[in-house]
Amino acid sequence: MPSPRVGVIGAGQLARMLLPPAIDLDVGLAVLAASAEDGAAQVAADVTVGADLATFAAGCDVVTFDHELVDPDVLAAAVDAGARFEPSPAALRYAQDKAYQRHAFSRHGLPVPEHDVAADVDAARQAGETLGFPLVVKAPRGGYDGRGVALAADVDALAEAVAAVGGGPVLCERQVELTAELAVLVVTSPSGDRVVYPPVFTVQEDGICTELLCPAPLPPAVLTQAAEVARAVADVVGATGVLAIELFVEGEQVLINEVATRPHNSGHWTIEGAHTSQFANHLRAVLDWPLGSPELACGAVATVNVLGPADGSDPRTRRAAALAIPATAVHLYGKHARAGRKLGHVTARAADLPEARRRAHTAADLLTRSEPRDVA
Amino acid sequence: MPSPRVGVIGAGQLARMLLPPAIDLDVGLAVLAASAEDGAAQVAADVTVGADLATFAAGCDVVTFDHELVDPDVLAAAVDAGARFEPSPAALRYAQDKAYQRHAFSRHGLPVPEHDVAADVDAARQAGETLGFPLVVKAPRGGYDGRGVALAADVDALAEAVAAVGGGPVLCERQVELTAELAVLVVTSPSGDRVVYPPVFTVQEDGICTELLCPAPLPPAVLTQAAEVARAVADVVGATGVLAIELFVEGEQVLINEVATRPHNSGHWTIEGAHTSQFANHLRAVLDWPLGSPELACGAVATVNVLGPADGSDPRTRRAAALAIPATAVHLYGKHARAGRKLGHVTARAADLPEARRRAHTAADLLTRSEPRDVA
Repeated sequence: MPSPRVGVIGAGQLARMLLPPAIDLDVGLAVLAASAEDGAAQVAADVTVGADLATFAAGCDVVTFDHELVDPDVLAAAVDAGARFEPSPAALRYAQDKAYQRHAFSRHGLPVPEHDVAADVDAARQAGETLGFPLVVKAPRGGYDGRGVALAADVDALAEAVAAVGGGPVLCERQVELTAELAVLVVTSPSGDRVVYPPVFTVQEDGICTELLCPAPLPPAVLTQAAEVARAVADVVGATGVLAIELFVEGEQVLINEVATRPHNSGHWTIEGAHTSQFANHLRAVLDWPLGSPELACGAVATVNVLGPADGSDPRTRRAAALAIPATAVHLYGKHARAGRKLGHVTARAADLPEARRRAHTAADLLTRSEPRDVA
Repeated sequence: MPSPRVGVIGAGQLARMLLPPAIDLDVGLAVLAASAEDGAAQVAADVTVGADLATFAAGCDVVTFDHELVDPDVLAAAVDAGARFEPSPAALRYAQDKAYQRHAFSRHGLPVPEHDVAADVDAARQAGETLGFPLVVKAPRGGYDGRGVALAADVDALAEAVAAVGGGPVLCERQVELTAELAVLVVTSPSGDRVVYPPVFTVQEDGICTELLCPAPLPPAVLTQAAEVARAVADVVGATGVLAIELFVEGEQVLINEVATRPHNSGHWTIEGAHTSQFANHLRAVLDWPLGSPELACGAVATVNVLGPADGSDPRTRRAAALAIPATAVHLYGKHARAGRKLGHVTARAADLPEARRRAHTAADLLTRSEPRDVA
C-alpha cells in the first residue's frame, strides 16, 4: 500500500479543502457525498454519492469527517464491522450533543456557562428562574451557524423560544456577557503527537462567523487561558485530528462555547497564515504521521468569509477584481450563490492586523460587490 | 459561466500541481492524459484519456500545457477550429525547437552560447572546427533531463555523439565553462500584466535538476543581469503564463540555456517559498486575471528533488519519517518508483540557506533512504 485511502464522510467545503494537502502528500482522498454537486464532489477524483456509510468505510484505510451530523448507531455498526474512524465516535459525541458536552465538561471542572437541560417548557421556566433572563435556549443536536439557538427575553417568551429550536429537551444557559469570542484548534494524532494553533479572534454576526484575526487582539493572559482550556478540553474529548474549541470571553474569563471534531471554519486562516494548515495537519493526524508547526507564519493574518450577496449574484463573476488586492488569497467553494450562504473566504497576510483586515475586507467586498466598509 | 474550464495538455506532475490553486479559485481544470495512471489523472475530477487534442480543446474555455511535446500541425488545426491556447503555439515553438530558439535569440541580440546547426556528421565536424572541442551536440527537439544531449571530446567522437542524440540535424555548441546555473520564471498575462520571480540557483547532476536555492547565492550583479535577460527573452517569446528561462553563468556572464513555456521544475520552490506559487500565477495568467506577488515569502528556501532510489523502493513508504523534519513540505507525484525517476520534491523554508538546505536534504534523504549528505 504505497498510499493510504482516507475516507471523508461529507463533501462540503471542509472536505474540499482537504484535497490540496492530500494531493501534495499523494494520499488518496475518497469523499462520501450526498450529491455530485457538493463542493468536494466537484473536484475530487474519488467520489461516492449517497452510499451506505458502512460500505464506504469498509473500502477506506481510515475514515474522517466533514461534519458531525452522522447517526451514532450507524457509526457503531461500522466500527463493529471493522471500520477505523479518526476521530472516534465517542469523541464525535461532544460535537453532536451539546447537553452531553456541557454535562461532561462540568463534571471535569472545565469552564462552561451555567446551564441546565430542560425536558419541556415547564422545566425551562424553572431553569430560567435559576439562571436568570434573558435565557439562551439551544437544541442539543443539529444546530449550526446560529440555527438551533433562541433567546428568551423573559419567562413569557420561553414557549416560543423552545418551539423555535424544535421543542424539548433543550439546553438552557445563562446569557454570557461577551467581551469577545476566540477559537483554538488542537490537533492530536492517535499516538499522542499534539499541536495547538494560536487562539484566533472570531467575529460573529447573526450567529455566523464572519471574520478571523490572528494574533488575537486580546490580553496575553486571556490567550494563555484560552490555550490552557483548549488543551484540557482536548484531553477530555480524546479526539484525533482537528478539534476546534470555540470560546466565549466574558471580562477576562474564558468559557467554552462549542466544540467541533473536524477542520473548522475558524481555522481557515491557517492555509496561508500558519506554517502548516489545519487541513494538512488533520490528514497527517488521522494517518498518525508527525504533525507540522501550527505557528503563525507572518506578522498578522485576517480571514473574511464571503457570504452570498443579498441580490443573489455570484462572487465567481468578480474573482479578477479581488485578485488585484495584494497578498490576499481567494478561496471559493463551488457552491451556488444564495443570499447569506458561505460561498468562500479570503485571507490576507500582512505585517500587522489593521493592514491584513483592510486587504481582506476590500477583497471580500469586491467579491460581494458590497459597499466598502471602514475597518480602520 | 460562473467558473471557466481550463484544459491542460498532459497530465504529469505539473498538471497535478495546478490542481490545488484551481480548487482554491474554483476554476475547472480538465486534463488530457495519455493514461489514467498519469500523476494528474489520478487526482483530477475532470480527466480525458487519449482523446483527440482538437476535440478536447473545443470543450475548454482556454487550453494550456503540462509539456511542449505537441505536434505543431495539430495545434494549428485546433486554433483554426477556434481553440484558444495560452501560451500560443508560436511561443511554444521556442521550447520545442532548440535550433529555432538559438537562431531567434541570436537575431535579437540575446546572449546565447556560440552555436551552429549541422545537418549531418560532416557539418558537425566543420562546426567543431569553428566552435572548438569539447563540443556539445543536442537534438533540436524532444530532449529533457539530460536526454538528447551528448558531448564530443574531439573530432573522432563526433559521429557517436550525433548518433547518440538521434542523428542530424543537430545543434552544436561550444561547451560553456559553468560557474553556476540559474533559472528565472516570468509570468505574463494576455493583457500584459507581468511578474518576474527572483532568480533561483539550480543544481544539476547528470543533466537533472536536483536542487533549487533562493535567494541564489551569487553576486547581485549576476542576478540583476539574469532578471534583465529573462525579461528580454520573455519579450521575444511572447508567451502567456509561466515562461521558465534556464541560464548558464560563465564567469560573471549570463547565457541562455533553455526555455519552457509552462510551469517548470525550477519553480517548485514557489509553492511554499513565494507569496504566490508559479502554479497559481500560471492559472491566473492564462485566465487573464491579475497576477500575485512573486517575491520570496521567507528568509530562504531550498527545494530538493526526490529521485527514485537505486533499489527501486518507494519513497511513499517513508513519508512519516520525512514529515518529522520541521518547516519542510513533502510533495509526491503519484508515480511508480523507478531508479532515478523524479517522484517528488521537498521544500524547506528557513531564516537562511544553510538551514533550509540542511532540512530539505535531510527530508529527501529520509524519503529515499540515502546516506545523509553533508550540506554544511
